[in-house]
Formats: sequence, C-alpha cells, structure tokens
Amino acid sequence: MADTPADIEGLIALMARLPGLGPRSARRAVLHLVKKRGTLLLPLADAMREVGTTARECVSCGNIGTHDLCGICEDPRRQNGQICVVEGVEDLWAMERTAAFRGRYHVLGGTLSALDSVGPEELRIPKLAERVKDEEVTEVILALGATVDGQTTAHYIADRLTGVQVTTLAQGVPVGGELDYLDEGTIGAALRARRAL
Amino acid sequence: MADTPADIEGLIALMARLPGLGPRSARRAVLHLVKKRGTLLLPLADAMREVGTTARECVSCGNIGTHDLCGICEDPRRQNGQICVVEGVEDLWAMERTAAFRGRYHVLGGTLSALDSVGPEELRIPKLAERVKDEEVTEVILALGATVDGQTTAHYIADRLTGVQVTTLAQGVPVGGELDYLDEGTIGAALRARRAL
Repeated sequence: MADTPADIEGLIALMARLPGLGPRSARRAVLHLVKKRGTLLLPLADAMREVGTTARECVSCGNIGTHDLCGICEDPRRQNGQICVVEGVEDLWAMERTAAFRGRYHVLGGTLSALDSVGPEELRIPKLAERVKDEEVTEVILALGATVDGQTTAHYIADRLTGVQVTTLAQGVPVGGELDYLDEGTIGAALRARRAL
Repeated sequence: MADTPADIEGLIALMARLPGLGPRSARRAVLHLVKKRGTLLLPLADAMREVGTTARECVSCGNIGTHDLCGICEDPRRQNGQICVVEGVEDLWAMERTAAFRGRYHVLGGTLSALDSVGPEELRIPKLAERVKDEEVTEVILALGATVDGQTTAHYIADRLTGVQVTTLAQGVPVGGELDYLDEGTIGAALRARRAL
C-alpha cells in the first residue's frame, strides 16, 4: 500500500500467514501491536525468538519441547505402560487438557494417505513399534480422528503392532450434544455402542 | 497446561492478546509457528523487533511511520490543500487503499466521548486547527464513522474550524448493497441525498 513503511508491510505479510488470520485481520493485529509497542510487540518479538531457538521435537514421541526428550517422556511417573497415539501435537495438548490420561504419547504427525504419498515411515510408525518393545507397553490407545484417513491409519497400526493391547476412543454422542443436531453416523455409532444403565 | 514448556505457554498468552485471536486460535497459531521455526517464527520475531524499534507516530498527522514525519506528510505532492480527518490509522489505511484521495491526513485517535472523558485535546483537534492555518488548507474532509460519537465529533470540528471549507463523506447505499439487507437509516439517508441520473 502506498506510503506505509516497508517493514510494517513486511510484518503484515508475515502475520497473514498465521492460521486464523487473513490479510485484513493481520493488518488490524499489526496496528494493535504498533500501538502497544512496549507492552506487547517487543515482548512478543522476544518470546518468539526464545521459542524459535529453544523449541524442538521430542526424539521419542514427537511432542514439542525444549530438550531432546519432552517433559512427558522425561517424567518417569508417566511410564505406566500406556501409549496414546495422536495425529498431531494439537491433539496431544487436547488430551492433556482433559487430564484423563497419565501415560505417554506418540505423535504421528499426520495420517496415512496414498494421495499425498504419506507412508508408515513418514508417520513414525516404526518408532512406535520400537517403543512398544522397549518401554514395556501394555496398551496402545489410538486417539485418531474419526475420519476415513484417521481410521485407515488406526487399522494399519493395529495390524502392525503385535503382543500388545490396542484400543481406540469410543464413538458416541458428545457431552452436551443434542440428538437433533447430530449426524446419522454419530447417532448410529452411539446406538451400536449402547451400554446398560 | 501440564508439561508444555513455559516459554511456549508464555508465547500463547501473548498471542492471545492480539485482536481476532482467542486462547484457542493463539494455541493453534503458536503450534503452526513452532512447526515453521526457520521460515516463519524467527523472521516474524525479527520483523516485530524491527517495527517495535522503528515505528512511531507522525508528529504532524498522527499516522504511523518510521520517522518523525510520516511518508505522506513528507511528500510535497500530497500538499494539495486538502486534509482528511479520520478516527484512526486503520481508517487512514482504508482511505489510502481507495487511492481516491491525494491530500494529507489528520488522525484523531478516537472520537469525543463524555463518558470516557475524551476531550478535544486528547484528539489532537488543536493541532488540526494549527495545521489548517499553517499548511494553506482549503478543505477539511471529515471521514468519521457514521456513529453517534463520530457525528458528534464531526460537528464539534466543523464548529471549531473557521475560514476553511468543511465537508463530510456522503451517506447512502454501499456499492453492491441490496436494499433488502440495508437498515432503514441508511435507506432514508440515501433517499434524502438522492441525485438526478
């Protein structure tokens, strides 16, 4: 745009590459940042540089951490024989928020996809098989998306792992869900998996 | 959240303070940034530091620039006797995108508001009166929001400035607007300001 300083335009272009921000909201965000230079923009620059230089993938599970092993893999209390397999770090974070799982994770980094030529090696599935042997794992919980790709990946992993119990998340009516707004697939799955009260 | 590194949590908290991002989308944005450390996160940190140290308000018009005078105030071709008064820098940017105005700007930084005790001094209105005298201004175009506060401010400025033509943006049907979806106020204003075809 005419007469906007080039470095502000550059910052807007970079911000617009964030998920959830388009060119318009990036512009608005940058203007907000410029107004709060001291209290938000410079601290944010420092925090980004800090994270950019320290963050790395856990060599064991694929989670994001600041050391070669992430906080969960380093914690001996989390070695309870359970490994929860998730597609991405965002899913690991979602599981952690529930505080319902106290074992370790394995982040695949995606799902098997013939179209995008994503095979088992890209998804760290050999590493998972290795961990199942090395870490005295008794149960692998597949917490993958209820999508075609997610379920394909789940079945592939279940076939691949031997000598360990493989389970998957239950499907059914979400908490707070009203039947009227649910799709037929979910209601059907919930009906088939019905349980005694 | 348990076991997320503190610096990543800190970055999420800062990002969540951006307009248009909540805690959830900040989390998603940070995860995206961590995945693209080299190509997005570190360049963004550098761009923010750069803007944070160079950006400042133009002493004349209040626009954002990298020098004491912004690019528009420094450009002698923009001294055409017209000053366009806007509420904020975002409005200045919006005007510039139209490329329909080739004069200079005056950024108020808000609107008069008795409730929030925003008076003429807070809005740089004395500076505007000064510029009208010093810069051989022939027309002041008020491009303020069509809100109660915006129009109050417009009338105050019109009363305050003497010896100069004061105009305001036309009100009417927006380009691409369908009557069915417009409010009565806009249709009424467009009807009263109707013109011969």
